[in-house]
Amino acid sequence: MPSIDINCDMGESFGAWVMGQDTALMPHITAANIACGFHAGDPDVMLATVRCAIEHKVAIGAHPGLPDLQGFGRRAMAMTADEIYALVVYQVGAMQAVARSQGGKLHHVKTHGALYNMTARDPALADAVARAVADVDPSLPMYVANAPMAKATLERGLKPVYEIYADRTYQDDGTLTPRSQPHAMIEDVDQAIAQVKRMVKDGVVRALSGKEVPIKADTLCIHGDQPGAAVFARNIRAALEAEGIEVRTV
Amino acid sequence: MPSIDINCDMGESFGAWVMGQDTALMPHITAANIACGFHAGDPDVMLATVRCAIEHKVAIGAHPGLPDLQGFGRRAMAMTADEIYALVVYQVGAMQAVARSQGGKLHHVKTHGALYNMTARDPALADAVARAVADVDPSLPMYVANAPMAKATLERGLKPVYEIYADRTYQDDGTLTPRSQPHAMIEDVDQAIAQVKRMVKDGVVRALSGKEVPIKADTLCIHGDQPGAAVFARNIRAALEAEGIEVRTV
Amino acid sequence: MPSIDINCDMGESFGAWVMGQDTALMPHITAANIACGFHAGDPDVMLATVRCAIEHKVAIGAHPGLPDLQGFGRRAMAMTADEIYALVVYQVGAMQAVARSQGGKLHHVKTHGALYNMTARDPALADAVARAVADVDPSLPMYVANAPMAKATLERGLKPVYEIYADRTYQDDGTLTPRSQPHAMIEDVDQAIAQVKRMVKDGVVRALSGKEVPIKADTLCIHGDQPGAAVFARNIRAALEAEGIEVRTV
Amino acid sequence: MPSIDINCDMGESFGAWVMGQDTALMPHITAANIACGFHAGDPDVMLATVRCAIEHKVAIGAHPGLPDLQGFGRRAMAMTADEIYALVVYQVGAMQAVARSQGGKLHHVKTHGALYNMTARDPALADAVARAVADVDPSLPMYVANAPMAKATLERGLKPVYEIYADRTYQDDGTLTPRSQPHAMIEDVDQAIAQVKRMVKDGVVRALSGKEVPIKADTLCIHGDQPGAAVFARNIRAALEAEGIEVRTV
Repeated sequence: MPSIDINCDMGESFGAWVMGQDTALMPHITAANIACGFHAGDPDVMLATVRCAIEHKVAIGAHPGLPDLQGFGRRAMAMTADEIYALVVYQVGAMQAVARSQGGKLHHVKTHGALYNMTARDPALADAVARAVADVDPSLPMYVANAPMAKATLERGLKPVYEIYADRTYQDDGTLTPRSQPHAMIEDVDQAIAQVKRMVKDGVVRALSGKEVPIKADTLCIHGDQPGAAVFARNIRAALEAEGIEVRTV
Repeated sequence: MPSIDINCDMGESFGAWVMGQDTALMPHITAANIACGFHAGDPDVMLATVRCAIEHKVAIGAHPGLPDLQGFGRRAMAMTADEIYALVVYQVGAMQAVARSQGGKLHHVKTHGALYNMTARDPALADAVARAVADVDPSLPMYVANAPMAKATLERGLKPVYEIYADRTYQDDGTLTPRSQPHAMIEDVDQAIAQVKRMVKDGVVRALSGKEVPIKADTLCIHGDQPGAAVFARNIRAALEAEGIEVRTV
Repeated sequence: MPSIDINCDMGESFGAWVMGQDTALMPHITAANIACGFHAGDPDVMLATVRCAIEHKVAIGAHPGLPDLQGFGRRAMAMTADEIYALVVYQVGAMQAVARSQGGKLHHVKTHGALYNMTARDPALADAVARAVADVDPSLPMYVANAPMAKATLERGLKPVYEIYADRTYQDDGTLTPRSQPHAMIEDVDQAIAQVKRMVKDGVVRALSGKEVPIKADTLCIHGDQPGAAVFARNIRAALEAEGIEVRTV
Repeated sequence: MPSIDINCDMGESFGAWVMGQDTALMPHITAANIACGFHAGDPDVMLATVRCAIEHKVAIGAHPGLPDLQGFGRRAMAMTADEIYALVVYQVGAMQAVARSQGGKLHHVKTHGALYNMTARDPALADAVARAVADVDPSLPMYVANAPMAKATLERGLKPVYEIYADRTYQDDGTLTPRSQPHAMIEDVDQAIAQVKRMVKDGVVRALSGKEVPIKADTLCIHGDQPGAAVFARNIRAALEAEGIEVRTV
């Protein structure tokens, strides 16, 4: 039976500031990528988010980011591979302890924002991330969606979990159409569901050009920061299950 | 054969700023309390300090503090027990991962500065610290030097490691003479060594009043932030060993 | 003609996190206390808030707080008078420049949260705040609502602007009924408006005991963080104007 | 009589961490570029440094940097022109107030580290810096050493103060020899002094190629973070004065 994981960024509140709709989304996903206090989140928010994930049997992921709270980890910073290694070790460890303290267990790692983008451009940084995770716990899978990060993940002996998107179109080489180009987004829900079904059942996606492109589909990334995100998550999950696709943690 | 551990705060540099004499002190101590990035330290400094500790076979401790970098964690903050619990879990976890990533293992936890002082005044905060450590890893000993923290440590099933001081005088109740009072400090090195010997060998300390007071002596706390700290550490270690006291990790 | 100023805390967003309903509230108030980047706000948020205030002819106030972003400046910190002096100078200066850069001018200063509470308890800290403001610009009024802060303000030659509350009851000594006590809040809008009218027109407030207490009423503090805050502000302003009370900046 | 200003970065301590030799250097320079709390410095350090500058009649400069304390403002960050504008306004304003609070007056602005380098590469960021300073106080000179920053300074109606270096060689186009190339540094003190004399007296520098290149020499930048920096500053000042060059603030 074909299956898919549904992951979403979570725990992005900070102090007195609330972001996202974690409690509304949690029932509909199977993996939470929880911010680790550098670009978002703080120890209190992490604890609350981990408790919520455990309650809904959602897999707990560490979502490390750059040390730029004001910029939400979205501004690239000129950091060395050693600096990236250190901050990933630190954040993954913090999340492990938070999970363990609540009777849970860290399940995976997914990088955030500019850190993710930096690994796509610089193989040395992708390797630093993979090496950090492997040195903390080599059994932790990496959620990946760019080729250098996937390569580094495999080279460091970690298991890659390949991400797909419901609301983005693809190019002939299997990458996402950049948002700066026309038709980058899929706004029709039925089309989004159809794309996911094909990726999961047949392992292909129809690129913008019409060409059918092979694709690995382990986990579907849902964006939690949009109005209606929880409804969208519930609907796409129901649609996938109605098609005989099991929605479950990797 | 009587024995004693020698611990010292380490890894208190931050970014471009250097503090302490870590590489000079490390050969002479048996336990390092390493700052975890809140009051001092950062992921890079933590990594370098852990590597140095491993090289010298020094036990790696997490030294969590308040989230107040500018104040070096020395300014009390009105935080709840839940907030204290969360920040200890977070920092201990980060240090665990840094240690593990370098092939080491976290050995103990000791609180820093105002956080330590707050646990001495508020049993609920002492309990929050002990509960946090127990929830992350119940095999981690707590280095303690105040009664409420020792009590909370025992109540949460953790092993207390009792701290003594070479350069401070004691009161009849076994507590340190406050620095605001006369004769609080011992500046004569021979007197300091003599005090430690009696504490380790006989389990007593002669209080300022002259009264002999029973005391638990598991670990000697050395201050690394004073000129000559490394020489003092080397000398006191040599003097203790010359007296037939083994200096080793707890 | 009697008059009153209406002030509200503003600019409490930070980075990607939104807090408050600044654009909805701004048309209904006459003074904005804008966070200065320590407990909330950042340079971008400050600029946007100052522009909004200028557009609505609202007086621009600096709202300095403790260096505790995660705690929103609500957790007391053990800081010295010199440290408080320095952080007020810094934050007031930053806000002055932001106002000036947009063609505006800083109008007043009001302390935030735990910093405000600390001045109520410790006259040395109240003096440090007043001295900081006087040293930066002695023409800046201080918005005050506690006796030690009012005293320090006068002693340092600054003009105090006395705050009143519509939604809080008063004690016989003119202080607010603590929230921990019954009947601390006024939830009936008509009663709130009636209380403000008496304070502005007659300079008295009817305390919980029934006693009439003299009170200085220069500015009415509105809370912007509650649902319906903008509607409440509009309504109370309209009610005051209907009573012949002019609503205008001090 | 020819003259030159001598400037040096100052106030780069933070909290409990000391950096630099401010009190030793201050007697030998005429302009201090003081960190503003983002990449280094804090309100207490700024106050102490401003007091020291006033005592030695040294001109007070704001030295704004990127919001990256751990990286000491040396890691480029992908920030927009609007973000750069806001952070310069904020930091310049904070420094203005600190200077004013101590009876001093802000004299100039010089950008730090990666912020400086970013203005050299991106004219829009150089313009954002110049616009920020002009909007806060158009009478403030900008210390400049790269062409885009000089151009933006002039275009925004600010006065540029051109920097020269004693310890760096120059290229035929008047730019510094990159440190990655051979002969970038001048280590011979006599050669360094000779280079400065020619720049100040004749307005030319002999490039590495031997070619004589015209150069504007308003201020000499001294590095304070090297051992012997105070001695070097004193010596070069004495040597320049012995040559009939007046050392004074611009």
